[in-house]
Amino acid sequence: MNRTAPVCKLGHVQLATPDIDASLRFFRDLVGLDVVGEDDGRVYLRAWNEVDHHSLVLREGPTGVDHFALRASSAAHLDALAVDLRAHGIAVDEVAAGAELGQGDAIRFVSPQGHPWEVYWEMAKGRQDSHLLNQRGKAYLRGSSPMHLDHINIACVDPAAGEAFLADRLGFLRREYVQPTDGPVFASWMSVTSQIHDIAIAMDPPPSLRDGRLHHISYIHQDRSDVLRAGEIMRDAEVQIDLAPGKHGISQAFFLYVKDPGSGHRVELFAGGMHVFDPDWEPVRWDETNIETGMVWVGPDFLPGSGGPMDPTTPCLPEADPAGRPAAGVAATEAGR
Amino acid sequence: MNRTAPVCKLGHVQLATPDIDASLRFFRDLVGLDVVGEDDGRVYLRAWNEVDHHSLVLREGPTGVDHFALRASSAAHLDALAVDLRAHGIAVDEVAAGAELGQGDAIRFVSPQGHPWEVYWEMAKGRQDSHLLNQRGKAYLRGSSPMHLDHINIACVDPAAGEAFLADRLGFLRREYVQPTDGPVFASWMSVTSQIHDIAIAMDPPPSLRDGRLHHISYIHQDRSDVLRAGEIMRDAEVQIDLAPGKHGISQAFFLYVKDPGSGHRVELFAGGMHVFDPDWEPVRWDETNIETGMVWVGPDFLPGSGGPMDPTTPCLPEADPAGRPAAGVAATEAGR
Amino acid sequence: MNRTAPVCKLGHVQLATPDIDASLRFFRDLVGLDVVGEDDGRVYLRAWNEVDHHSLVLREGPTGVDHFALRASSAAHLDALAVDLRAHGIAVDEVAAGAELGQGDAIRFVSPQGHPWEVYWEMAKGRQDSHLLNQRGKAYLRGSSPMHLDHINIACVDPAAGEAFLADRLGFLRREYVQPTDGPVFASWMSVTSQIHDIAIAMDPPPSLRDGRLHHISYIHQDRSDVLRAGEIMRDAEVQIDLAPGKHGISQAFFLYVKDPGSGHRVELFAGGMHVFDPDWEPVRWDETNIETGMVWVGPDFLPGSGGPMDPTTPCLPEADPAGRPAAGVAATEAGR
Amino acid sequence: MNRTAPVCKLGHVQLATPDIDASLRFFRDLVGLDVVGEDDGRVYLRAWNEVDHHSLVLREGPTGVDHFALRASSAAHLDALAVDLRAHGIAVDEVAAGAELGQGDAIRFVSPQGHPWEVYWEMAKGRQDSHLLNQRGKAYLRGSSPMHLDHINIACVDPAAGEAFLADRLGFLRREYVQPTDGPVFASWMSVTSQIHDIAIAMDPPPSLRDGRLHHISYIHQDRSDVLRAGEIMRDAEVQIDLAPGKHGISQAFFLYVKDPGSGHRVELFAGGMHVFDPDWEPVRWDETNIETGMVWVGPDFLPGSGGPMDPTTPCLPEADPAGRPAAGVAATEAGR
Repeated sequence: MNRTAPVCKLGHVQLATPDIDASLRFFRDLVGLDVVGEDDGRVYLRAWNEVDHHSLVLREGPTGVDHFALRASSAAHLDALAVDLRAHGIAVDEVAAGAELGQGDAIRFVSPQGHPWEVYWEMAKGRQDSHLLNQRGKAYLRGSSPMHLDHINIACVDPAAGEAFLADRLGFLRREYVQPTDGPVFASWMSVTSQIHDIAIAMDPPPSLRDGRLHHISYIHQDRSDVLRAGEIMRDAEVQIDLAPGKHGISQAFFLYVKDPGSGHRVELFAGGMHVFDPDWEPVRWDETNIETGMVWVGPDFLPGSGGPMDPTTPCLPEADPAGRPAAGVAATEAGR
Repeated sequence: MNRTAPVCKLGHVQLATPDIDASLRFFRDLVGLDVVGEDDGRVYLRAWNEVDHHSLVLREGPTGVDHFALRASSAAHLDALAVDLRAHGIAVDEVAAGAELGQGDAIRFVSPQGHPWEVYWEMAKGRQDSHLLNQRGKAYLRGSSPMHLDHINIACVDPAAGEAFLADRLGFLRREYVQPTDGPVFASWMSVTSQIHDIAIAMDPPPSLRDGRLHHISYIHQDRSDVLRAGEIMRDAEVQIDLAPGKHGISQAFFLYVKDPGSGHRVELFAGGMHVFDPDWEPVRWDETNIETGMVWVGPDFLPGSGGPMDPTTPCLPEADPAGRPAAGVAATEAGR
Repeated sequence: MNRTAPVCKLGHVQLATPDIDASLRFFRDLVGLDVVGEDDGRVYLRAWNEVDHHSLVLREGPTGVDHFALRASSAAHLDALAVDLRAHGIAVDEVAAGAELGQGDAIRFVSPQGHPWEVYWEMAKGRQDSHLLNQRGKAYLRGSSPMHLDHINIACVDPAAGEAFLADRLGFLRREYVQPTDGPVFASWMSVTSQIHDIAIAMDPPPSLRDGRLHHISYIHQDRSDVLRAGEIMRDAEVQIDLAPGKHGISQAFFLYVKDPGSGHRVELFAGGMHVFDPDWEPVRWDETNIETGMVWVGPDFLPGSGGPMDPTTPCLPEADPAGRPAAGVAATEAGR
Repeated sequence: MNRTAPVCKLGHVQLATPDIDASLRFFRDLVGLDVVGEDDGRVYLRAWNEVDHHSLVLREGPTGVDHFALRASSAAHLDALAVDLRAHGIAVDEVAAGAELGQGDAIRFVSPQGHPWEVYWEMAKGRQDSHLLNQRGKAYLRGSSPMHLDHINIACVDPAAGEAFLADRLGFLRREYVQPTDGPVFASWMSVTSQIHDIAIAMDPPPSLRDGRLHHISYIHQDRSDVLRAGEIMRDAEVQIDLAPGKHGISQAFFLYVKDPGSGHRVELFAGGMHVFDPDWEPVRWDETNIETGMVWVGPDFLPGSGGPMDPTTPCLPEADPAGRPAAGVAATEAGR
C-alpha cells in the first residue's frame, strides 16, 4: 500500500446509460447488486460485502462516465489534494455534502487524460441487511453476486503520462506494467491498496486512440465458480460476452467480460487476483516476449488492439452530450451538472 | 441400471405444507426452482435441467407427502405394475390423465412401509425457457439453483422389508447398504438408474420408530460451490441448517441439509454422487467398523439416531394411525383428494 | 440406458505412444492417474473412482490406438456379439484371458469406420487404496485428479454409417446429434449408459477427411474447479492447451482440451455433463441455426473444421492405408501385437 | 493498513517438530509446499504465490515454535524497533545475516505473552520456477497447494495485554474482536496489511490457560474448492481433521483445520477472507449475542473452550528443549513467567 497516498481506495463509479431500465436489469438482476437508493433519476446500487452506502450509481443519459470516485485518506488529505491539484493546473470543482446520497463534501476534476474523478472523505455506511455482523448485504440472492467493486481499467493516448498523473497527484503505485523492449509504456496496473490494481491505465488502441475512455469496471466475487455461474447467466440472458472465462497472467484474475446491454459499458466479473504487502515491491515488467502469457495465462487468446470484441471502449465524456462533454470548459461544464 | 425394472426414474414429489407461502419462498426464492403452473391450490415447480414439466408440487395442508412419483418404463410396464401390485395385495387407485398438470393416466398406492407412491408414464415436457437447446430452464437466476430432483430418503420400522418391496415390486437394485456384523439391514441405497441411489430407505430411529416417514428429498447441483452458496443463502434467510457442508462416504455426495420453513420437510441440496455402470455391481456393505466414515467422509460428525437435528423425520400421511401405519382407508383418502 | 445393449460401458483405452516416458509424465504426474501395473512394456493406469483394474494402457510405438475397450453386458452377451459381428462380415479376433492384466477372454475387431475395438466381460477389480470403502484410489494426490474415464470422441468419413454400426452392432443410442437442415449427420453423441455420451462420432474434417481417427479421450472430474486447476498445471508444464476452459452446449460438459506431449493424442479433462434417464429420450438435433451454441455455450469460440488446434486428430491404426482405412490384414496385425 | 507500523507483513514461521520426516510428508506431499533449501538440519519450504524465499522452516526438536517472523517496513524501521523494544524492557537478540537462508540481519525477542518473534528486513526472493512472471512457484503440483502463508492464531492468558503489545510495539490494528457485554476482550483479529487479520490473539482456554501458545498457522488457497480438496486428501492420509469444512463469521474465512502428524501443530487450510481498505475502519465487536455466528457462519458448530478437538494448543517454547529455547535474555524472560 502507499502509506502517503492522498486517497485510500476506489469507492464508486457513476455511469450514464441511455437505457437505465436495461442497465438496472443487468446490474440488479444478472450481476445481482442491491438497489439501495434513488434520487433525481439516479439509482444507487451496492454489492454484498461493501462497507459504503453504494459502489455504483446509474444515471440516464448518453453512454458515459460521470465520475470515478476515490475515497480520500482523511478529511485533511481531501483538502490538501484540492490545493495540490490546483497548484498543478487542474480545475477543481467543489461539490457540497448531499450532492450524492450518503456522501460528504467532495471535489471533482478531469485528469489530463480526460477521465472524470471525484474524491470524497465522508460516506454513509451501508444498511445492515445481513445477519452476519461484518457483512452488510445478503450474499447470493440473485445473479453472480459479487462481493465488492474492485477496480477500473481506463484508456488514453499516452499511458505513461496517465500513469504519472495517477502516481504524482493521487499516490497510486505501479505494480505491473507492459513496456516493449524499445517502446513506451503501453499499460500499467496501479494501486493505493494492497490489491495488485485499483486502476489499470492502458493505451486506447487504434483506430480509436483517444483520451478519456473507459475499458471496464470490475466487480470481484468470492470464488471462481461465481464467475462460471455468471457466464451461464449472461449467455442465457443474451448479454454480450466479450471474453471468458480465463485467468489473466497480469493480476492473476479469473475473468469474464460482458457488456451492459443498457449502456454498452464493459464490466468484468472476476475472482482471485493478487495482493502486494511488501513496500519495496518491484513492479513486474511484461514485454513482447511474454505479453501473451501476461494477457491470458489460461483461457481464450487475447491481445489488445487486435480488433476483437475487447477493443472498443466507451467514452467517459460523450461528444454527443454537451452536458457531459469536456473541452476547454470542462470544469465549468462539470460544475453545471 | 436395472434393465427389467417397471419404473425408470424418480419423477416428482407432491408435498403438503401448512404454510404454502413460506414453502414457496423457500423453494422458489432460496432454492431457486421455477414456478411452472398452478391448479386447485397446488403450485408446480421445476429445476433448470429437468426434462419433465415439474419435479415438485406443493399443496396446502398439514405437513405430509401426497406421493413420491416414479415414471414407468413404458405404458405397458405401467399396466403390468398395477396387475402385479394387486396380485400382491396392494390396493391400487387409478388416477385419470389430467389429475396433475401434464400427467397422463397414473396409479397410486401405499407401500407396506406406509409410503404413498404414484406411477405414471406420460408427462408433458417442460417449457423451453433457455436458449440452450438441451436445457429447458434458465440456470442460476436465483438461489442455489439445482439441476434436477435427484432422490428421496424415506424411513420405516423394518428397512429390510422396505428394501424387498422396492426391489421385488418396483425393480430397484441395492447399491450400498448398512448392516452391522450380527444385525439386520439398517439402511439401503437403491436405484433403477445408474445413480448410486434414487431412493434410500432407512430405519426411522428411536424414539420415533414409525413407518411412513420421509427423511428428505434431494436436489442435485452442477457444482459443489453451488452447495456452499446455498449455505450462505439459507443461513442469512434464517432457514434451519441441519447438517452441512460435508461429503458423505456412502454415495459420495457433497451435502447441505435444510428444513423448509413452511412445512418442516427436510431438503438436501447436494452435488456430486456416483454412478454405477456395471450390471454385476456388488453392493457395498457398511458396518459398525466403518459406518462413521460412511456417514461423513469429510465434514461434521453425524450418526443417525444420535438425537441431533438430523433425526426427526416428517410423516408422509399425517392422518395415519398412531403406529405410523396408514389406516385401511388411506388409499381412498388419497383418491379422494 | 439401452436395456438390450451387448455392452454396458466404456472400460479402457490402450494407446500407443512414441515416447512412453513423456506420456507417463503427462498421465501420471499432470493428469494424476495411478500406475497400477506393467507387463511387456505396457503401463496400466487408473483414476481414483474407477471400479476396474485400469482405464488406460500405454504402449511404446508410433502414435495410435490399439483398442477402445467396451465391457460386455454379460458373458453371454460377449459370445453373442462375436457371432453377430461375424454374421455381419466383421473379422473378429479372440484374445485369451490374461492377454491384458486383469482381463478375461475378449474379442477384438475393427469397425467399418476403421476404429479398433475390444470387448471383454471379466475384469479384475482395482486395488483398494482408499480408506473410503466405495472408492478404490486415493483422490487428489497429484495433478487434476479425475474420477474416471468417461468417453471417447472418434472421427471418420461418414458419421451416419459410423453411428449405424455403433447402434446396430453394439447397442449405442443416439442422445444428441448435429445435422444441418439439408445435409447429412455430421456428428452424434451416443451412449449405452445414462451418460449423455460414452462415444461421440464425428466427421473427420477436411483436409484430413479420413477414417479411423481419434479426436480425444476424456476423463471426468468431481468438480469444475478441478478442470480450472488442470489449466494452470498444464500451462506451467508447457503442455499444449487446444481449447479451454468452457462449457459445451451439446453434452453440457465443462472442458479443457490438451495434448499428451508424448503421443500427440488429445485428452479432454472435464466435469459435469448430463444424464438421460428416460427410455423415450428424444435425441436433441443441432443444426446450422444453433451449432455455435451447441459447440460452446460459455467459453472460447470453436467450430470444427475451422482449421484451429482442435482440428487435427490422431490415427488409430498408423499402418493403415493412405485412405485411412485399415488394410485387410489389420485384424491380424492387431492380433499379433 | 497501518501506515506507520514498524512491520509490513507476516513473513515466515519456524516450527520445531519431533518427527521432521512426518512433518515434511505433511507439508510437502499433502499441503503441497515446495522444499526450497536445507541447512543445519532445517528444511525450508514455500507456497507457490509467495515472493520471499520461504514461509516455513522445519527443525527437528520437541514440538514448539522457534519464531514467528515479521518483515520490517524498512531497514530503518527494523533498527527503530529494536530500540523501542529495549526501551520497553523487552530483551532483544540480534541475529546476523545468513543465520537463516536468504535472510539479512534480524532481531528476535519474546513478547510478554511468551511468543517468540523475529523481525527482518532483507530476504532473498524465491526462485522463479513458474513460466508465469508474477508467480514464483508452479501451482497445483501436489496436495491442496495454497498460495501463501496468511496468518497465525496465538493464545495467551490475557488477550487484552497481548493485543496491546501487538498494537503499541508492532503497529497491528484491531479489525474484529470478541468481548462479552460485561467482560474482558476474549480474542482479537489484527493486521498491519489490508487483510482482516495477519495475527489473531485469543485466550488459551481452560484448563490449559497458559501463555506462549500457538493455536494454528494458516495458509490461504486460491479457491474454496482447494479447501474441499484438502479435506479428501487429509482424510485419506489419516491426518486428524479438527474442524471442517465451514465458513467463519469473523474473518469470513472458509476453513479446514488439521494437525501436522509430525508435530501436533494445527494448520488451517483456508480460502477467502476479507480486506480492509478504509483507514477509519471501525473494529467489529462480537459478543455473547452473536458469537456463535461469529465463530461459524456456515458449517459445524464450534465454540472455543468447549473441550473439542479445536481446544488444545501447542506450546511455542517447550520447557524441556534447551535447543529450542531462545538465547540467555529470552530464557530469563521466559523463566520469569
